[in-house]
Amino acid sequence: MRVDLLSTAVAPLGSGLGGGVEHMVIQAARQLNAQGHAVRIIAPLESAADVPELLTLPGRLAPTMIGHGHDRPLSIEADAFLVVALRRLMDQSQAGDVILNFSYDWLPLFLSDHLPCPLGTLVSMGSLNRSLDLEIRRIAACQPHRLAFLSAPQAASFGLAGPTRLIPPGLDLARYPYNAHPGPALGWLGRIAPEKGLEDAFALADRTGATVMAFGVMQDRAYWDRLVRRHPTAAVRYGGFLRMPALAEAVSQFRALLMTPKWLEAFGLVGIEALACGTPVIAYRRGGIAAYVDDGETGWLAEPDDLDGLCAAVERIPSIERAACRARVERSYTLAHYGTALADWLAALTAEPNGTEEAVA
Amino acid sequence: MRVDLLSTAVAPLGSGLGGGVEHMVIQAARQLNAQGHAVRIIAPLESAADVPELLTLPGRLAPTMIGHGHDRPLSIEADAFLVVALRRLMDQSQAGDVILNFSYDWLPLFLSDHLPCPLGTLVSMGSLNRSLDLEIRRIAACQPHRLAFLSAPQAASFGLAGPTRLIPPGLDLARYPYNAHPGPALGWLGRIAPEKGLEDAFALADRTGATVMAFGVMQDRAYWDRLVRRHPTAAVRYGGFLRMPALAEAVSQFRALLMTPKWLEAFGLVGIEALACGTPVIAYRRGGIAAYVDDGETGWLAEPDDLDGLCAAVERIPSIERAACRARVERSYTLAHYGTALADWLAALTAEPNGTEEAVA
Repeated sequence: MRVDLLSTAVAPLGSGLGGGVEHMVIQAARQLNAQGHAVRIIAPLESAADVPELLTLPGRLAPTMIGHGHDRPLSIEADAFLVVALRRLMDQSQAGDVILNFSYDWLPLFLSDHLPCPLGTLVSMGSLNRSLDLEIRRIAACQPHRLAFLSAPQAASFGLAGPTRLIPPGLDLARYPYNAHPGPALGWLGRIAPEKGLEDAFALADRTGATVMAFGVMQDRAYWDRLVRRHPTAAVRYGGFLRMPALAEAVSQFRALLMTPKWLEAFGLVGIEALACGTPVIAYRRGGIAAYVDDGETGWLAEPDDLDGLCAAVERIPSIERAACRARVERSYTLAHYGTALADWLAALTAEPNGTEEAVA
Repeated sequence: MRVDLLSTAVAPLGSGLGGGVEHMVIQAARQLNAQGHAVRIIAPLESAADVPELLTLPGRLAPTMIGHGHDRPLSIEADAFLVVALRRLMDQSQAGDVILNFSYDWLPLFLSDHLPCPLGTLVSMGSLNRSLDLEIRRIAACQPHRLAFLSAPQAASFGLAGPTRLIPPGLDLARYPYNAHPGPALGWLGRIAPEKGLEDAFALADRTGATVMAFGVMQDRAYWDRLVRRHPTAAVRYGGFLRMPALAEAVSQFRALLMTPKWLEAFGLVGIEALACGTPVIAYRRGGIAAYVDDGETGWLAEPDDLDGLCAAVERIPSIERAACRARVERSYTLAHYGTALADWLAALTAEPNGTEEAVA
């Protein structure tokens, strides 16, 4: 089959600013290609990825939905990347067999009934905006096979009734070295931005005396500087934005990974990256993280924003078997799992009982 | 033919808040119906109009583009009236033969290549936003017959090269009584809102001692109150929002109509309504008004925002023949003119060489 993957519209693929979605798009291309499909990623200009076919298109990047405001109207521009990309995808003469959409935007969802082939959307964030909520609920009601989610708590945030298709990301385990003997530092991974809650890592470092290594795209320098000024004695060190394989090497050295998002993290790719290296996860019980952090087995969960609980969890890190962390990923989050889930989804999308409206007419 | 008319999305039809476009939609329905077409207006809930078929659909009203900001992204909501209406118009099974779009919005333009029948847009305002400019220029370049404008200066504001189709509004002259013997007052018509420039009518009343009767929807009460406080001695009286036939009766009593918009008025329907009654127009030389105000024949034009010039023009009102004003409308702006222009446009739209993309596939 000819499969088009529509990448996130907020950043070029490979920039890191798209977060875990970038990983999911690229691995989807590779998995589906390995299954014999002709796969093409469509992504904004300046994207770069080691995949069989990457079509970059011009156009303004989309603003992120994070912090946009639940009730605020969405914004759109005539020369947006998504508009350019969807205009091309609507063109009958260039149509493939199926489109997998990884962008978190209204327009692809709205247009999904009017494309020359089925479009499935892998929803990559929880509920953030009422227009997107409405559109996701509309599709869930009439064509549920066109939606997939990363975790059950994420899907629940949209108020969906009935079962939903879950397609969590998968890792190439060969690229994540298991390390039974980590260093003394804790780790923190993610964009340096307020919604990721790095301030709690600073506070924890202050209280426990632990060293925390922070890695990720420096998206909000002023935010980082404020934290450093507010916690002058906290041993939090910024290590830059690491790519593979340096990222896995660093993560494998963490005694544990701290995950402190202030929002409903749909999944938290870095969590399974840590587990794959044998590194347990200490996190708030919020969003998709609980899918893979089994309390006492692969890490410890504190109640949301309970900093005392998070600090107490640091004391209990030694009780976690690092081998159990690795085993958790082997059991559920390998590339093979991801590829199988995508193949199932493609089959459901292309077996649509009525096809698209265009096909009926 | 089955013709769908998509009304303005900023207000219910009949509310007056849609301005001159409301008149154009309703008269288009009547003219095309009289030509034997099956015409349906699609308009927001709470619309009311004496037309053969009016389909009202739910959905949030669109914000007006006036004052939105040229470079600001457009806003959109999943449950907007336009989204609901266009979803229905995209439905093959309910498609008519042609759609005439009177809304000034990006979405109908963007979708016009992907509807089951041709969509023509009667552009009702000048350039206000870069996304709309881009989309209008794109269509002008590849399918110019899908666009019509109200006046040449309006079309020029989009930077279009080449000839454009002009479809100015037309009046039912029987409803506008000619009056050779007006009263002493000047008149002003329009929404009471800053972009209409009512402050210049107050200033003119102050300077010349003339009485000005103002009629229109009271959209911005605070603006009106500010003007009254700023010009305590100006004889400007608010007469409410008049509908026909009371509107024509009032206008026929004006010594002249003042038109003082601060923006590029695409046409200015009230201008020809005044002329039809024999009432000359005093206005700034800006936008579409110059199409029907021939200096010294049907009124006087001052340079844009030249208040001295506008006041001087008041002195010269007696030199205008009121019969010449009426004749100007009879020559160019009757319902017959409007109906013929619409019929020509329908013929061009339905004779598209390649039809729509869907028809080709």
